[in-house]
Amino acid sequence: MEALILDGRHLTLETLHQVVYDRRPVEIDPEALDLARKARQVLFDMAAEGHPVYGLNRGVGWNKDKEFDPDFFEQYNRNLINSHSLSVKPFCTVEEVRAMMCIRLNTALCGSTGISAEILTLYKEFLNRGIHPRVLRRGSIGEGDISTLSLIGQTMIGEGVVEYRGMTVPAIQALRAEGMEPAVMGPKDGLSIVSSNAQGESIVALVIYQTEQLLRESNAIFCLGLEGLNGGLQPLGRKVNALRGLPGQQTVAADCRRYLEGSYLSRPDPKRALQDPLSFRCGSAIGGTVLDALNFVKQYMEMQINATDDNPCIFADEGTTSVSQNFETTTLSLGVEMLASALAHLSKTICYRLTHLADPAFTGLSRFLTPVDVKVIAYCAIQKTFTSLDAENRMLANPSSMDFMAVAGNIEDHASNLPLAASKVLQILDNLRYMMGIELIHAAQAVDLRGRPALGRVTGPVFDAFRKEVPFLDADRNLSIDIEKAYRFIADGRLDAAIRQADTH
Amino acid sequence: MEALILDGRHLTLETLHQVVYDRRPVEIDPEALDLARKARQVLFDMAAEGHPVYGLNRGVGWNKDKEFDPDFFEQYNRNLINSHSLSVKPFCTVEEVRAMMCIRLNTALCGSTGISAEILTLYKEFLNRGIHPRVLRRGSIGEGDISTLSLIGQTMIGEGVVEYRGMTVPAIQALRAEGMEPAVMGPKDGLSIVSSNAQGESIVALVIYQTEQLLRESNAIFCLGLEGLNGGLQPLGRKVNALRGLPGQQTVAADCRRYLEGSYLSRPDPKRALQDPLSFRCGSAIGGTVLDALNFVKQYMEMQINATDDNPCIFADEGTTSVSQNFETTTLSLGVEMLASALAHLSKTICYRLTHLADPAFTGLSRFLTPVDVKVIAYCAIQKTFTSLDAENRMLANPSSMDFMAVAGNIEDHASNLPLAASKVLQILDNLRYMMGIELIHAAQAVDLRGRPALGRVTGPVFDAFRKEVPFLDADRNLSIDIEKAYRFIADGRLDAAIRQADTH
Amino acid sequence: MEALILDGRHLTLETLHQVVYDRRPVEIDPEALDLARKARQVLFDMAAEGHPVYGLNRGVGWNKDKEFDPDFFEQYNRNLINSHSLSVKPFCTVEEVRAMMCIRLNTALCGSTGISAEILTLYKEFLNRGIHPRVLRRGSIGEGDISTLSLIGQTMIGEGVVEYRGMTVPAIQALRAEGMEPAVMGPKDGLSIVSSNAQGESIVALVIYQTEQLLRESNAIFCLGLEGLNGGLQPLGRKVNALRGLPGQQTVAADCRRYLEGSYLSRPDPKRALQDPLSFRCGSAIGGTVLDALNFVKQYMEMQINATDDNPCIFADEGTTSVSQNFETTTLSLGVEMLASALAHLSKTICYRLTHLADPAFTGLSRFLTPVDVKVIAYCAIQKTFTSLDAENRMLANPSSMDFMAVAGNIEDHASNLPLAASKVLQILDNLRYMMGIELIHAAQAVDLRGRPALGRVTGPVFDAFRKEVPFLDADRNLSIDIEKAYRFIADGRLDAAIRQADTH
Amino acid sequence: MEALILDGRHLTLETLHQVVYDRRPVEIDPEALDLARKARQVLFDMAAEGHPVYGLNRGVGWNKDKEFDPDFFEQYNRNLINSHSLSVKPFCTVEEVRAMMCIRLNTALCGSTGISAEILTLYKEFLNRGIHPRVLRRGSIGEGDISTLSLIGQTMIGEGVVEYRGMTVPAIQALRAEGMEPAVMGPKDGLSIVSSNAQGESIVALVIYQTEQLLRESNAIFCLGLEGLNGGLQPLGRKVNALRGLPGQQTVAADCRRYLEGSYLSRPDPKRALQDPLSFRCGSAIGGTVLDALNFVKQYMEMQINATDDNPCIFADEGTTSVSQNFETTTLSLGVEMLASALAHLSKTICYRLTHLADPAFTGLSRFLTPVDVKVIAYCAIQKTFTSLDAENRMLANPSSMDFMAVAGNIEDHASNLPLAASKVLQILDNLRYMMGIELIHAAQAVDLRGRPALGRVTGPVFDAFRKEVPFLDADRNLSIDIEKAYRFIADGRLDAAIRQADTH
Repeated sequence: MEALILDGRHLTLETLHQVVYDRRPVEIDPEALDLARKARQVLFDMAAEGHPVYGLNRGVGWNKDKEFDPDFFEQYNRNLINSHSLSVKPFCTVEEVRAMMCIRLNTALCGSTGISAEILTLYKEFLNRGIHPRVLRRGSIGEGDISTLSLIGQTMIGEGVVEYRGMTVPAIQALRAEGMEPAVMGPKDGLSIVSSNAQGESIVALVIYQTEQLLRESNAIFCLGLEGLNGGLQPLGRKVNALRGLPGQQTVAADCRRYLEGSYLSRPDPKRALQDPLSFRCGSAIGGTVLDALNFVKQYMEMQINATDDNPCIFADEGTTSVSQNFETTTLSLGVEMLASALAHLSKTICYRLTHLADPAFTGLSRFLTPVDVKVIAYCAIQKTFTSLDAENRMLANPSSMDFMAVAGNIEDHASNLPLAASKVLQILDNLRYMMGIELIHAAQAVDLRGRPALGRVTGPVFDAFRKEVPFLDADRNLSIDIEKAYRFIADGRLDAAIRQADTH
Repeated sequence: MEALILDGRHLTLETLHQVVYDRRPVEIDPEALDLARKARQVLFDMAAEGHPVYGLNRGVGWNKDKEFDPDFFEQYNRNLINSHSLSVKPFCTVEEVRAMMCIRLNTALCGSTGISAEILTLYKEFLNRGIHPRVLRRGSIGEGDISTLSLIGQTMIGEGVVEYRGMTVPAIQALRAEGMEPAVMGPKDGLSIVSSNAQGESIVALVIYQTEQLLRESNAIFCLGLEGLNGGLQPLGRKVNALRGLPGQQTVAADCRRYLEGSYLSRPDPKRALQDPLSFRCGSAIGGTVLDALNFVKQYMEMQINATDDNPCIFADEGTTSVSQNFETTTLSLGVEMLASALAHLSKTICYRLTHLADPAFTGLSRFLTPVDVKVIAYCAIQKTFTSLDAENRMLANPSSMDFMAVAGNIEDHASNLPLAASKVLQILDNLRYMMGIELIHAAQAVDLRGRPALGRVTGPVFDAFRKEVPFLDADRNLSIDIEKAYRFIADGRLDAAIRQADTH
Repeated sequence: MEALILDGRHLTLETLHQVVYDRRPVEIDPEALDLARKARQVLFDMAAEGHPVYGLNRGVGWNKDKEFDPDFFEQYNRNLINSHSLSVKPFCTVEEVRAMMCIRLNTALCGSTGISAEILTLYKEFLNRGIHPRVLRRGSIGEGDISTLSLIGQTMIGEGVVEYRGMTVPAIQALRAEGMEPAVMGPKDGLSIVSSNAQGESIVALVIYQTEQLLRESNAIFCLGLEGLNGGLQPLGRKVNALRGLPGQQTVAADCRRYLEGSYLSRPDPKRALQDPLSFRCGSAIGGTVLDALNFVKQYMEMQINATDDNPCIFADEGTTSVSQNFETTTLSLGVEMLASALAHLSKTICYRLTHLADPAFTGLSRFLTPVDVKVIAYCAIQKTFTSLDAENRMLANPSSMDFMAVAGNIEDHASNLPLAASKVLQILDNLRYMMGIELIHAAQAVDLRGRPALGRVTGPVFDAFRKEVPFLDADRNLSIDIEKAYRFIADGRLDAAIRQADTH
Repeated sequence: MEALILDGRHLTLETLHQVVYDRRPVEIDPEALDLARKARQVLFDMAAEGHPVYGLNRGVGWNKDKEFDPDFFEQYNRNLINSHSLSVKPFCTVEEVRAMMCIRLNTALCGSTGISAEILTLYKEFLNRGIHPRVLRRGSIGEGDISTLSLIGQTMIGEGVVEYRGMTVPAIQALRAEGMEPAVMGPKDGLSIVSSNAQGESIVALVIYQTEQLLRESNAIFCLGLEGLNGGLQPLGRKVNALRGLPGQQTVAADCRRYLEGSYLSRPDPKRALQDPLSFRCGSAIGGTVLDALNFVKQYMEMQINATDDNPCIFADEGTTSVSQNFETTTLSLGVEMLASALAHLSKTICYRLTHLADPAFTGLSRFLTPVDVKVIAYCAIQKTFTSLDAENRMLANPSSMDFMAVAGNIEDHASNLPLAASKVLQILDNLRYMMGIELIHAAQAVDLRGRPALGRVTGPVFDAFRKEVPFLDADRNLSIDIEKAYRFIADGRLDAAIRQADTH
C-alpha cells in the first residue's frame, strides 16, 4: 500500500482507517515538517528573549506561575512525562493506539505545536514499524488527554512498555530491535506529546468505523426481518421519503430498497397488513437518525484531526504565540453522546421488532416461532435477554460530558469527557451486536417458517450465509450457543462481508 | 406588515418568528391551495374505488382494520377529534399556539395531506384574526401530536375554548364575533388536523428563538465578567480560532471581540494572569458549542416545517398514496437534547466563572466582592443559589427521547418525545436567566470595584443599563430582590435590547 | 384542637401534619425553653472569654477566619439575613412554610442551637396566628437551607412579605395587626434561623403525606381495575405473601384484600386466566415497594425533625460547643430519591395495566373499551397521554443528590440537594394523579361493560362515587375534560374520602 | 470447617460468605428435605387430579395456556432448560456461581418449590465438590433469573460446561470424575431451577461483602488523610453525633475515633483551622450514608435468601398451590441503586478531599505535595484521573431498575433489573479502589511532608504497610505504576488486613 503523506490538513477518516486497520505506512510532508521546525524556532526565540511561554519556561496548569531555566528543559520534560503518566486499566487496543499516534502526528504538522522534528519522526517510525505503546485507557477528562498520551511519551524516551510483533515488551527492547535510539526531550516536547485530544479521538475513530458497519448490518437484518414479517414496502419508497427530505432517512431507505430488490414483498399479498408497527414501518427513519447523528460526528471529527489543538498555539508565520482554547472538543463529545442516544433508539426498535416477530397477531406464524406447538418451546424467553441488553444501552445513553469538576487549583474547570463518552458508545455497539444476532435468528426462523420465499438481492445471500452458521430451530437446544454464534457472525465481519459482496454484484 | 405567503416550501425560522411574535398576517399561495385540493381529490377517488385508505375509510392506529362507510365520514371525524382530545395541563402559550397553527398550515400546503380547503382557510383566519385555541400542553409522545393538536380541531368545529382579544371564551363565541361559521369535517379532516408534529415543533420554535437571544446575552455577560476578572483576550483572537476552524467557536469569538472593542483589557497589564481558568479562557468555545448544537436543530427544523409529515402521504401528481414514516422526528428530538446538554455545559461554566469572580486569588479583588471586609458580607452564600439551579439543569439534560413504550396494541412502538424534550430546554433556559442575572451582578460589582475602567463597545452600555436596575452593593441588602431584578432585566428583553443597540452602532 | 407541646423530642409526622394542615396550635415546653436559654448562655460565656465561635464572633463559610466584636452582633446578624436572602421563584406553599417553621422550632428546642427565646416565641406566634412568611422555593442545595430560610428571618425583623389572612402583605403590617413587634437580632440568631434543613424537610413532609394518600388511592384503583379485568385474587392471599415476608408487599396485599371483600372475583370463573400479566399479578408487590421506600423516608425524617442540625452544636449541660456535621441529610435525600424510583415503577405499572384493560386478549371485552365497535372510537389514543407522563416521571426519577459543586471557597464541598430531590417527587405524584385518573376511567368503563358485577367493599363505593363525576362513555366526547375531572376527583381528596369511609365501615 | 445446615430459614449473610469464599461445606436439614418432598407430592397429586398447574402441566409465560401430558414431563423440562439458556458474556465468577447455588438451594428448602430431592442434592454436591457451572452473566431482567440460572440446569443434566479443579471442562466429565450421574428432570424441575432471583442475589451478595470491606478501608484512608490535612477531630465526637442520632453516621464516627486514637490530631494546634471543608468535616456522615444504604440492602437480602421466590407457591401443609408474586425483588433492586448513589457521594467526596490535600491554602504544605518546588511536579495532573473515574461513577449511579419493557406477549410487563443494578455497583466499587489508592498516595505524602507525626492506632500501621508498597515521592516517576500498586494494595486485601489487625490489638 502506498504511503500516506501527512501534512496536517488532508487526513480523512478513510485514510486514517487504512493506517489503523490496514497498517498503511505514513510519510511526513517535507513542507509540513519545515513549518513544524519554524514553529519550534519561534519558541526558542521567545525563550531567548525571556518571554514567559506556557509549558516552555513556565509550568503547566496551576504551576503556570512557576518559572524555570533552559538548563532544566530536558529534566522538566522528562518530569512532565512521568508526572502525567496517570491512567488506569484497561489497556487501549492496538487500533486505538495507532489512531492516536496518527492523529497526533497529523495535528502536530499544522505548524502550531513547536514539537521537535525528532519526535515527529518517532511517531512515523512507531506507526510504520508496528511499535505500539501500551496505553492505559482511563484517566482523561477529554480536555487534552494528558494523563493517557503521556504513556506514549514514556516509550519515546525508552521507558514504558510496547506491543511489538505480537508481544508485550519493554519499549527499549523494541527500539533496539529496530536499531533505534530513545529520544532526548527538548523544550516543550513533553507538553506537545501529551497536550492533545488524540486519545479521545482515537476512540471516536473506532466508533465511527464500527457504527458505519453496524448500521449497514442492522439495515440488512431489518430487511430480512421485514421479509420474516411479510411487511409492507411502501414506507421505503423513493418518492415518499424524498418529499420529507431528511438526509439520513432517504439514504437508509435507498439502501433498504436495494437490499430488498427481487423480494417476494414486492408482490401483492392480501394477507399483508395495511400498515406495520412503527418499529418496522419507520425502520429506515430510525436507521436514518443514526446516520444523521453519525454524520454530525464525522463532520467535527474531520475538522479536528486536521487542526491544531495546541495551547499555546504558535503562529509560525508571525513568530508569535497565542494562548488558545483550541483543545476544546465539547461539540464532538456532544455529537458522540447524540449518537449514543440514536443507537438507544435503534436498540429499543430492535426489541420491539423482535417481540412482533414472535407474535402470531403480527406474523400469522406460530407463537415464538416454534416449529411445533407445545413440543418445542423455541424463542419463548429470549425477550428477557435482549431487553436486558436494551436496559444497559439505555443506561449508557445517559450523558456524561458535563459531569466534571474543577481540577488543578480550580483552573481546569471545564471538560468534555470525550474518552468516556466514546467508550460508552463502543459498549452500546457491542451490546447491539448481540441483539442484532438475536434479530437475525428470529428473522431467519420466520423466513424458514414461510417456506423461504424469494428474498431480496442482499437479504437472500445474508440468509444463506447465516444459515451456514446457525441452522433452523427444529427442536429446543441450548440457545446461548446460537446467540454467541450469531454474535460472532456479526462481530467477526462475516455478515458485513456477505452484505457488501451481494450489494456490489 | 406585509402578509407572508405560505406555500409549503418557503417558511423560514425568521418569517415564522414574525407570524408568532409580531402577528404578521399570512396568506395561502393559490397554487399551493390548488395542489391541496388535488390531493384531496385523490382520496375521494380512491374511496370511490373502494381502496382502503388509513384514516379515510379505515380507522387509525390499532383500528386500521376497522372499516366504515362514506355516510359516516362527518361523524367519524368528529369522533376522532373528540377521542383524541387527550392532553393535560398546563396550557400552551399563545406563541406556541400561533407557531403550531402556522407550521401545520404550511406543511399541509405541501400537497400530501388531503385536508379540505375550508380547514386550511380556518388556520389562516385564526392566525390573522387572533383566535387562539386553548391547547393543553402535555400528552403527546412526539410521534404526531394527535392528543394535543386535536384541541385546535375542537375549536374549528365550534367546540372548545379559545384565547381571543385577551380573554378566554368558548370558541363558538369568538367565531360569531368574527362572523365566522364552525367547520363541517369532511373525510380525513380530523386526521389531517391532528396528525402532525406541529405542537412539538412549536416548542422547538420557541427554543430556537430563546436560545439565540440567550446566547447573545450570555456572551455579553461573559465579556463583562472578563472585564471584572481582568482576564486575557488572546483566546478570543481571530487567527488562533481560525486555525482550529470550529464554526460555533469562531462565530462566538468574533462576537466577543466586537463586544469588547475598546476595553481596558486590550492594554497590557503585568498583573494579568498568563492564562485564565478554562471557564473564562474557553468561554467562546463553550458558547460556540451551544451555537453548533443550535445550528443542528435549526437545520432539521427548517426542513421539517417545509415538508409533509402526513401518513398516508398523498402524491397529488400521480393520484396515489403511500404509507409513510414521515411523521418521524427523532433526529430533531435528538438535536434538541444535544442542545440541552450544550446548555448544561454553559450552566456549569457560569457557575465556575462566578466562583472565580468571588475569589481574590483570581481577581485580586476582595473576597465575595465585598465593598468593605467584615462589615459587609456581600455575595458569600449566593453560590448555593446558582449551583442549585445548575443541579436542576443537569437533571433536565438527561435524555427522554427513548423513554417510550409501545401503545395502541403494540403498533405505535416508537416515539421521539419531542414535546417533552423541548419543554425541558425551555426550563433550562429560564433557569439560566437567573444564573446569568447573578453573573451580571458579580461582573458589574467587580467592574465597579476596579473603578469602572474603560469597557468594551457593548459591555460598556450593558453595564450602564444594568446599573440603572441594580446599583452597586455598598451594604448588605435582601439579595433575592436583586436577583429577581437582574432576572427581569434579562427575561423582559432589556439586556438584549442594550446589546443589539450597542452592537449596531 | 388542643395545643401541641413542642420539646425537641416528640414531634411525630402525624402531629406535624396537624400543625401544617389543620393549623393545630403549638406551645413550647417550658423545660425545653430553659434548655434553649442555657445553650444561649454557653455562647455568651465563650464569647466573653474570647473563644472563637463559628457564626457568633467569626464569619460563616469561607469567612470563618473573619473576626468581629460584640457591638457588631446585631448589625452582623441583620447582614447575615440579608446576604443570605438568595432564593428564586416559585414561592413555597403555605403548607410548606408552616412545616418549615414547626420543624425549625422543634429542632431549635433540642438545646444545641443557642437561639434567643424571643425568636423561638416568634415561630410559635407565626404558626398560631397564621403569619406565613413568603419564602422563595429554589436556591438551597440541601446542606442547610440558608438561602431560603433567610426569608423567614426577614419577616421576623419586620422586613419581607407574608401571607396573612389570605393576603400577601408586608411583614410589618401583619405584625402590627397582631400587636407584635419585629425582633431584634441577638448574637448567632441569624445563623440559627437559616442553618437548618427545615425547608427541604418541609417538602419531604408533603411528600410523605401525599404519598401515603396516593398509595391508598392507587391500591383502590388497582383493585377496581382487577375487577375490570376479571383478574385473579390468589396473588393477594395472606399466606402466600406471608411466606415471602416482605413488609410492604404484605401490607398492601392485606389492604387490597379488604378493598375487594365481597367482589365477584372471589367466585370461580372458568374464563378467568390462570395468571394475569405482572402489572396486575404483582400489583401489591409494586405498591409494597413504594411503601418500603416510604417507610425508609419516614424513619429518617422522624429522627431528623427531633434532633439538632446545628453547627456549631452546643452542649448546654457541659457549657461547651462542638464543630458538627449534623446538618448532613444525605441519607434522607437518598431515601427520597429511592421513593422517586419506586413511584417510577408504579408509573410504568399503571401504563401496562391500562394497555391491558384496552386489549380484548386480556379482558374479553371490546377493543379500547368501546361501547360500540367502529361507531365509537373510545380510548384508542389515550395511551399516548399516560405514556408521555410516564416519560416525564422516568426523567424525574434520575437522581440529583450528587450533582453539586464546591462553593464558598471550596469549603462547602458536599451537598444533598434535598429540596430539589423532594420537589421532583411532588411533580411525579401530581403526574401520577393524572395517570391514576385515566386508570379509574378505564377500570370503571370495563366494570360497566361487564354489567357492573358485585364489587368489593371499597371498590364498590369508589366506583359509585366516581360515576357521579364521570359517566359511562357511550359516545365519543372531549376526553381531556374527563381526564381533568378524574384528576380533580383524586387531587381534591374525594377519592380518598370515599376509600376511607368505605374501609372503616 | 463444620458443615452449614441449610433449612430455608437460617442462612445469614455471614454464613453465605463462608460458603462462597471459604468453601464451607453445606448439608441439607432432614426436616427441610421432608418438607420439600411433601411439596413435590402436592404437585403430583394436583396433576393426577387434572388441575392446571403453571410450569407443571401448563407452559410458562405466554404459553401458560398450552397444556401437556405427564409422559412429556421429562422432555418438557429438558426443553425448558434448553430454551431458557439465553444469556451472554461475560461469565460469572466462581464466587457468584457458588452464591447462586447456595441461595437457590436454601430458598428451595422453604417447602414451596416442588423441586425433586435429587436436584436439591445436586446443588449440595456441586457446592461441596467444587463443581461450578459456567454461567453467562447477562440476560436476566431480574424478575426470576430464568435466562441465566438455566445454565446451571444444563450442567445438572450433564450438558454445558463447568469450572472444576481450576479447569473449564464439560459438565459430564466433572460428574464422572466425581462418580456422579446426570439428573433426570422430573415434573417442574426445570422451572424450579430457573425460576429464582438467585443470580441477581449472588451479585448482591458480592456487593454487600465488597462494600463492607471498602467502607472500612475508605474510613481508614479518610482518617489518614485527616492527619495529612491536620484537620479537626470535633465532628467525630461521640456526643455531638449521638445528639443527631443517625445510625450510620454514629457508627462510622465511632470507627474513625478508634482508628485515630493516639494521633497528633488530638493535641491542640493553633494552626489548625476552626473548621475543615465538608469533605473532611462530614467524612463520617457521608460514610454513614453508605452504611445506612448498605444496611437497607442487607435487611431485604436476608429476608429474600430465606424465603420462597417460587411461582406457583406450594403450601405443603395444605396440599394446595397459589399463584404468587413472590419473585418480585424490586425493593432490593431499589436498595442496591440507593447504595450506588451513596457510593457516588463517597466518590465525589474523595475527589474533593484530594483537591484539598494538594492545596496549600488548606494544608499549609507545598502545592501538589511536591517535595521540592519547581524541580518536582508531583501530583499536578492526577486530579484528572480520579475525576474521570468519578464521572464514570456518576453515570453508573443512574438508575436502571425501571428501564424494562413488556415481554412474552405483554404478560411479563414488570421487572427489577436486579442483575444490572448490582453489576453497576461492582464497577463503582472497583473504580473507587483506584480513587482510594490515589487518596492513600496523597494522604501518605502529606503525612511524610509533615515529618510523619504520631499517627492513630490504626492509621499508623496503615501508613507503614502502605509505605512498603509505595515509597515517598521524592522525584517525578511514572505515577501510573504507583496508582496500580496502591490499587492492588487495596484490591488484594492487604489494606483491609492491616486495618483489621491494628483495630483488634
